[in-house]
Amino acid sequence: MTGVKIGIIMGSQSDWTTMREAAQILDELGVAYETRIVSAHRTPDRLWDYGKTAVARGLEVIIAGAGGAAHLPGMMASKTRLPVIGVPVQTRALAGVDSLYSIVQMPRGFPVATMAIGAAGAANAGLMAAAILANSDPDLAQRLEDWRTALSASIPDEPVDD
Amino acid sequence: MTGVKIGIIMGSQSDWTTMREAAQILDELGVAYETRIVSAHRTPDRLWDYGKTAVARGLEVIIAGAGGAAHLPGMMASKTRLPVIGVPVQTRALAGVDSLYSIVQMPRGFPVATMAIGAAGAANAGLMAAAILANSDPDLAQRLEDWRTALSASIPDEPVDD
Amino acid sequence: MTGVKIGIIMGSQSDWTTMREAAQILDELGVAYETRIVSAHRTPDRLWDYGKTAVARGLEVIIAGAGGAAHLPGMMASKTRLPVIGVPVQTRALAGVDSLYSIVQMPRGFPVATMAIGAAGAANAGLMAAAILANSDPDLAQRLEDWRTALSASIPDEPVDD
Amino acid sequence: MTGVKIGIIMGSQSDWTTMREAAQILDELGVAYETRIVSAHRTPDRLWDYGKTAVARGLEVIIAGAGGAAHLPGMMASKTRLPVIGVPVQTRALAGVDSLYSIVQMPRGFPVATMAIGAAGAANAGLMAAAILANSDPDLAQRLEDWRTALSASIPDEPVDD
Amino acid sequence: MTGVKIGIIMGSQSDWTTMREAAQILDELGVAYETRIVSAHRTPDRLWDYGKTAVARGLEVIIAGAGGAAHLPGMMASKTRLPVIGVPVQTRALAGVDSLYSIVQMPRGFPVATMAIGAAGAANAGLMAAAILANSDPDLAQRLEDWRTALSASIPDEPVDD
Amino acid sequence: MTGVKIGIIMGSQSDWTTMREAAQILDELGVAYETRIVSAHRTPDRLWDYGKTAVARGLEVIIAGAGGAAHLPGMMASKTRLPVIGVPVQTRALAGVDSLYSIVQMPRGFPVATMAIGAAGAANAGLMAAAILANSDPDLAQRLEDWRTALSASIPDEPVDD
Amino acid sequence: MTGVKIGIIMGSQSDWTTMREAAQILDELGVAYETRIVSAHRTPDRLWDYGKTAVARGLEVIIAGAGGAAHLPGMMASKTRLPVIGVPVQTRALAGVDSLYSIVQMPRGFPVATMAIGAAGAANAGLMAAAILANSDPDLAQRLEDWRTALSASIPDEPVDD
Amino acid sequence: MTGVKIGIIMGSQSDWTTMREAAQILDELGVAYETRIVSAHRTPDRLWDYGKTAVARGLEVIIAGAGGAAHLPGMMASKTRLPVIGVPVQTRALAGVDSLYSIVQMPRGFPVATMAIGAAGAANAGLMAAAILANSDPDLAQRLEDWRTALSASIPDEPVDD
Repeated sequence: MTGVKIGIIMGSQSDWTTMREAAQILDELGVAYETRIVSAHRTPDRLWDYGKTAVARGLEVIIAGAGGAAHLPGMMASKTRLPVIGVPVQTRALAGVDSLYSIVQMPRGFPVATMAIGAAGAANAGLMAAAILANSDPDLAQRLEDWRTALSASIPDEPVDD
Repeated sequence: MTGVKIGIIMGSQSDWTTMREAAQILDELGVAYETRIVSAHRTPDRLWDYGKTAVARGLEVIIAGAGGAAHLPGMMASKTRLPVIGVPVQTRALAGVDSLYSIVQMPRGFPVATMAIGAAGAANAGLMAAAILANSDPDLAQRLEDWRTALSASIPDEPVDD
Repeated sequence: MTGVKIGIIMGSQSDWTTMREAAQILDELGVAYETRIVSAHRTPDRLWDYGKTAVARGLEVIIAGAGGAAHLPGMMASKTRLPVIGVPVQTRALAGVDSLYSIVQMPRGFPVATMAIGAAGAANAGLMAAAILANSDPDLAQRLEDWRTALSASIPDEPVDD
Repeated sequence: MTGVKIGIIMGSQSDWTTMREAAQILDELGVAYETRIVSAHRTPDRLWDYGKTAVARGLEVIIAGAGGAAHLPGMMASKTRLPVIGVPVQTRALAGVDSLYSIVQMPRGFPVATMAIGAAGAANAGLMAAAILANSDPDLAQRLEDWRTALSASIPDEPVDD
Repeated sequence: MTGVKIGIIMGSQSDWTTMREAAQILDELGVAYETRIVSAHRTPDRLWDYGKTAVARGLEVIIAGAGGAAHLPGMMASKTRLPVIGVPVQTRALAGVDSLYSIVQMPRGFPVATMAIGAAGAANAGLMAAAILANSDPDLAQRLEDWRTALSASIPDEPVDD
Repeated sequence: MTGVKIGIIMGSQSDWTTMREAAQILDELGVAYETRIVSAHRTPDRLWDYGKTAVARGLEVIIAGAGGAAHLPGMMASKTRLPVIGVPVQTRALAGVDSLYSIVQMPRGFPVATMAIGAAGAANAGLMAAAILANSDPDLAQRLEDWRTALSASIPDEPVDD
Repeated sequence: MTGVKIGIIMGSQSDWTTMREAAQILDELGVAYETRIVSAHRTPDRLWDYGKTAVARGLEVIIAGAGGAAHLPGMMASKTRLPVIGVPVQTRALAGVDSLYSIVQMPRGFPVATMAIGAAGAANAGLMAAAILANSDPDLAQRLEDWRTALSASIPDEPVDD
Repeated sequence: MTGVKIGIIMGSQSDWTTMREAAQILDELGVAYETRIVSAHRTPDRLWDYGKTAVARGLEVIIAGAGGAAHLPGMMASKTRLPVIGVPVQTRALAGVDSLYSIVQMPRGFPVATMAIGAAGAANAGLMAAAILANSDPDLAQRLEDWRTALSASIPDEPVDD
């Protein structure tokens, strides 16, 4: 076991532009993670292995981003009891509504914690993962509170022309 | 090998109401088939086995119906080179648009031959499967032509009040 | 502190028809929870209090269901660092797409772990909450694994006419 | 009390590009206003304060713009009896349909006077606010009538090639 | 002048099922109103007259409900400077999305204060009209505050099985 | 009477980019037309006059283009018995779906012959107007047939790389 | 030639429930018509014949209703220069949006005069056909004016409780 | 007979940008094909001929791409018993949802094997056609398996910054 509790996986290299927002948030919060490309369709066996070994490897949360007929988050949820956070990647024709529906509309038994479409959703996946870990990590809980406080403090009182 | 060339699979018993339309069409056309419940999320290993053994078992077409975050057709397409025909089952909240997007928006490499939402789509899945087999089965080709001719001949010339 | 780690809140009594699915899952898994009606618009101070005291009261996960312009999950996420799971309740005109968009499209900083529209989503909210707690509760982890195994085992091999 | 009767609030600095259209209309009509950034999620206490003191501070109309899971207008409507005008800001993935649904689909008890998505909606928010004030301000009523007459008079009779 | 400050108009008798929610709210708040059927397409001259005489007749707010290609609210906004509140009536095929888009997407110059689709929107139209009048009617302002307080007080603390 | 039988009207100068496609088709077919800006909201009296005098002025078809809450075609249909052809102009946020719904979903009694969104729809409005006139103008009928034949003849047999 | 100038065609017997609204309007207006079932997919040769002989048979307008992937109106428009009016029949899963898009989004060259989804659209198709014929039939023009006047006169002034 | 078993047809030259993805896949797999422009509306007789002679000419699969009111795939399915694969071309206003609905929502009797919107769908059409032929061509089956294996092998294990 590596001590890494969060896995960030995505369906293809092109999803990294979106998913690195999750990694950046975890960097800011000082939480270790690993990143992997796991394609539900092109590397299904990798998906199987990842899901089957996740608990034993010490993972506690899996963040999965995918676009279009986005099967990665839901299939991962079928292979592990760990909480899976899904990020719908924006798509060209359908703007990510296809990704969203493919991820969020899971049947009874296999939840995917779905985030907003695109980069904001990926960042929030990092925050949600941290919030989950924070339940048993008071230091992380404090860092998360601080991050939230700083975000609120950064909001100016009045808009300015740009 | 059983001689059965068409497998009709579906995510749950409740999908059978829709999917038996495919079976009925194949009955009308005199084409043998098997029916299985294969849930992408609840029985992923069954999906794996089904896909991995499909060619060796002599299957030539797989018809897969599912609703909501409908991952069964696409995941089956990832496990076998056989043509997979997808039927989006109508859903309560989103009327099957979720099923449709989850099935049709497959990424490059893994096509699913998507049919219309609901019962008409299931019937058409049976016809499409027969059309595929008909390429190398002249008798079936003739039966399919006859079925189509009979359908056309059944259309009355004028509407009548009911 | 009551020892209850999961709060199930909802915008109105009418949401209970949907949200009790979450409670039933938690009953099946032997996880304690509390239920409250907290309306973002009608009882905003109750929302404030609930969010502000949640950590101190020992809660670790909040499940929030709401319909239409569904602000409860997102506003709760703004008031506490705890993971908030959102359930979009189905609506009459827009079938819950309004609920879904109002819950899932949260801005950077305040994730809501969004589930499917309606009863399946509520049940899955219970499972997601359990999965989060299971990370630090091996007994619950085992019960969750058993629940999943039993679900998979309940799937028949072939569909039957009804 | 400052004599300012209209507050223009928005969820973030980036909304100002849209919301300044409201300010410009009020400038044209000679109506005073204040502008504030009030984020429902990042500065919920600021929202609370703004809503709770609005009547006492002499405000008569609040214009609130937000995008995505746009909770600001509806939460403000929960905190004050003043008329709240909501402007759905256009978003990247969902083009502002998420903003629109999150603002317009308010439950019984808490109306938000929703405008069109984007800049035209923001301009119209300014006009709606002026129309509300004009009921008890004959001079403003006249200026509003004049503004409308001038707009109509500006329409050419025939299109010209550009 | 009759002293009536609020006009409730609708495109057809069938809209009354929805629009009487507005009337009921105004009854509860003790605010007088008139009700008229004014069809943008079938009685355009009635629309013209209504709009042109509205200010002189002492009206201060117009509530307009319509469905489908719902032109009544927007055309009324073109004929009078009074605030017009639009209620999208739910429709059979498109569930009121057609009504909503036809009412809310008004061009710069002619705002319609759009409410939620259906009965909740009609009730809220009554509340919005009252809120507008309350700015210059302290007694009504108090009755509106009381109505809101009573609504909040009616929310039970916990859901109960039905 | 000018002998002009087709009026092309539009809600604003900016619609001309789209609507001149209708004019170009009529130029190609040798059919006279007039062009006017008639805004349903900004120049409602111009709309009234145009509709009320259309028959007497000898018009036989009116082509009306508008975007967003596009009330021009439907209101014109309410003012004249002449066939009204509606062109939904593409919009920024909703891509013209708002225009389409506002034009096509007319209630019983007032049809608008709706075309496709955008430039293709405008061109087709010209063709539809010509088809209507061609019923009583054999020369135009022939020119329309020729135009259609030429269009078909212009289609190459095979695609070529560009 | 039969003297019948209007053909009402539809894709199947089941569309008659919708399309007879067109027939009833033409009955009310005293306009002769014929009714035929012409399925684009099941009887394409019938469609070809109908389109190719329409002008010679004296038809001046064709009303075509269809649902789902509704190809009948557009294909008829490809086979005849006569004006084709399309009626999108409401469908089960997609409520007629599929019918609407399949009919209205015709490419440059082949307009279909699209009506509202469902029965109101069918009635309006009858009115549009009559309006087209009325251009060269003063008696019909008068009857159409009378029909419109009677419709307007039927609107009560105030709504009544039912 | 030319020995060519796959026909790639499209509604216009502009669709070639999308449809050549299908050709490229077939090139990679060493499968012969022909390409033709066949417009359902502009060259309906060409469509008729193509469909009617397809079997006799030795074709076994037809790939048809079209956009908007995309009638080509469905009309081809009405003219031949061969499997027809439909590719919804992305469109400007509706992003290809119009194309998708026009192709996928076929009535009982005439299936179209629908692919994803745009270029990925075109590539997948090539793969689906190959999968159909592979049932009776073991060499092609092997090449298809190899293509799939190579695709899977090309997926890197971890994302890299670009």
